[in-house]
Amino acid sequence: MGVKKKSGKGRKRLLAGVDIGGTKLHVIVARADGTVLSRARSKLKGETAFVPVMKRVVACLEKACAGADVRLRDLGAVGVGAPSAVRADGVAVNAPNMGWRNVPVARKLASLTRRPVVVGNDCDVGTLGEYVFGAGRGSESLVGLFVGTGLGGGIVHHGQLISGENHLAAELGHMIVSVDGRECGGGHRGCLEAYASKSGMGRRFQREKARVKRSLLAREDVDLANVRSGVLSRAYRAGDELVREVVDEAARYLGVGVANVITCLGPDTIVLGGGVIEALGKEMLPTVRAAAKVHVFPPPSFRDTRIVLARLGDDAVALGAVAYALQVVKPGKR
Amino acid sequence: MGVKKKSGKGRKRLLAGVDIGGTKLHVIVARADGTVLSRARSKLKGETAFVPVMKRVVACLEKACAGADVRLRDLGAVGVGAPSAVRADGVAVNAPNMGWRNVPVARKLASLTRRPVVVGNDCDVGTLGEYVFGAGRGSESLVGLFVGTGLGGGIVHHGQLISGENHLAAELGHMIVSVDGRECGGGHRGCLEAYASKSGMGRRFQREKARVKRSLLAREDVDLANVRSGVLSRAYRAGDELVREVVDEAARYLGVGVANVITCLGPDTIVLGGGVIEALGKEMLPTVRAAAKVHVFPPPSFRDTRIVLARLGDDAVALGAVAYALQVVKPGKR
Repeated sequence: MGVKKKSGKGRKRLLAGVDIGGTKLHVIVARADGTVLSRARSKLKGETAFVPVMKRVVACLEKACAGADVRLRDLGAVGVGAPSAVRADGVAVNAPNMGWRNVPVARKLASLTRRPVVVGNDCDVGTLGEYVFGAGRGSESLVGLFVGTGLGGGIVHHGQLISGENHLAAELGHMIVSVDGRECGGGHRGCLEAYASKSGMGRRFQREKARVKRSLLAREDVDLANVRSGVLSRAYRAGDELVREVVDEAARYLGVGVANVITCLGPDTIVLGGGVIEALGKEMLPTVRAAAKVHVFPPPSFRDTRIVLARLGDDAVALGAVAYALQVVKPGKR
Repeated sequence: MGVKKKSGKGRKRLLAGVDIGGTKLHVIVARADGTVLSRARSKLKGETAFVPVMKRVVACLEKACAGADVRLRDLGAVGVGAPSAVRADGVAVNAPNMGWRNVPVARKLASLTRRPVVVGNDCDVGTLGEYVFGAGRGSESLVGLFVGTGLGGGIVHHGQLISGENHLAAELGHMIVSVDGRECGGGHRGCLEAYASKSGMGRRFQREKARVKRSLLAREDVDLANVRSGVLSRAYRAGDELVREVVDEAARYLGVGVANVITCLGPDTIVLGGGVIEALGKEMLPTVRAAAKVHVFPPPSFRDTRIVLARLGDDAVALGAVAYALQVVKPGKR
């Protein structure tokens, strides 16, 4: 390994994956087989305007490339996952966490990097990442459910993402499971996210302030509307009654969502991921599976779907963006 | 047109479509463009054992062929829609209305007819029929919801049926929309079918017997558990308060199902069909659309999905079976 940067055809197959989140960027450089060679991160600290974020992405890309000993211009392609509905041309239609509407992510990044850029919704590409490189390896069709502040989803059918003709679909967190039920953060009533997400759990904590005061949450510095996953998992493991009740309720509703996915789409694998699952997946999984078994139809269909935890952790979206870039750009064949 | 039956390559492209229902068979002979040349029907009168039904199908095929002036052996292929989950090899896994379990429909019919036979779930192929020949012509992706005694569904994505890796999926009537809600006929709780189907409406009538006695239903000879669509539509049009309330409730829940389909799959078209819709589609459609608008997420996604009534009527499943046979067997290319 010399100090001189490598270039030429042998290096063309390195790719970058970018995960644009509401609070941070996470960039990787990886081989086409999913091996991550380097990572770079950057906190956004509330600076989410479109052009500055794009410049931060490029700076992160440069840093990750340096870590992998490759020049940005020698990357085969750059894949991006963004917290937005994304059109096929790489325009982010609506990213409420970023304050973006109809911003040309692919075009802007391609012009800044001179590389082919492919952009998808973060949960969509995260699901593709698990399908290609993670817990879904070897499956034919896969649905991902990512539980964090909200609940996002992704659908991969025989290798292809299904995101709807409007590129707004696979909003699995917003399927109605309880007509006229609880409201979610987006003002939508009775949807899965209103129960099975940190914001959903948060609304229940806010309604039960008296119980919160007697719970282990009272000992921590928490924002009741959005209790951190780590705090939830500590309290859960310590046996806190309220936290157990609320987390178990979330797991039960997640199981209803899983049942609906099996009933309607019958994938061979369902992957559960996101911050809440990373912190509490092992504790929640038995309840999720039991609830799915109760609510799926017909019962025999259940046995054919594996319900598993995500494997790619923080890299899921960035690795999924790499997988998406490989699928769309086919940089190895250029 | 002579009396001599036509044969040879020019006739190879005629196909037969078979709709196997719990009470009757409906068979068509059609051109590859969906033009129906002849029809034959047969009532099963409770005789649903597998081999006798297969023989009745062959007799119906012979009759339909005679009507279209073609020999059975000159058909390009035979497509079948069955009220069952159907494996890729044409085995009907479980048809409760017929009392069938794991019966080899495709193999048996192929051996009786010496023709290539393709078999699918009735709602799946009915949806494909509307996609190829009916209300979904020109759409990229289509979801069908068929409201009859139960509520069946089908999903066509870019021309391909999605029926799950287990071939049991697109059971859209069994998505949970009201956890712990009303029970459907299959003992499943809170699913769409428990509200938006004749059996679902029937259970409400049975619970409201006092109101039924004061309603227009009291003047008709009805089975409250399964009121005929024609009776419902007469009472609805005559302004019967109870029937309007119950049908409107069903339409509202159907709209919730439509919303979930849009939120999760984002098809460009949703087709509503089945006996209830054929009788009351125009009356129900505004309520379905209004409810879908309330319950879909995010709201803008709604504008991109057309919600329309099925066009193929009684021929939907048989024509869909023809479309499915064309897709699988490609008889024109043999």
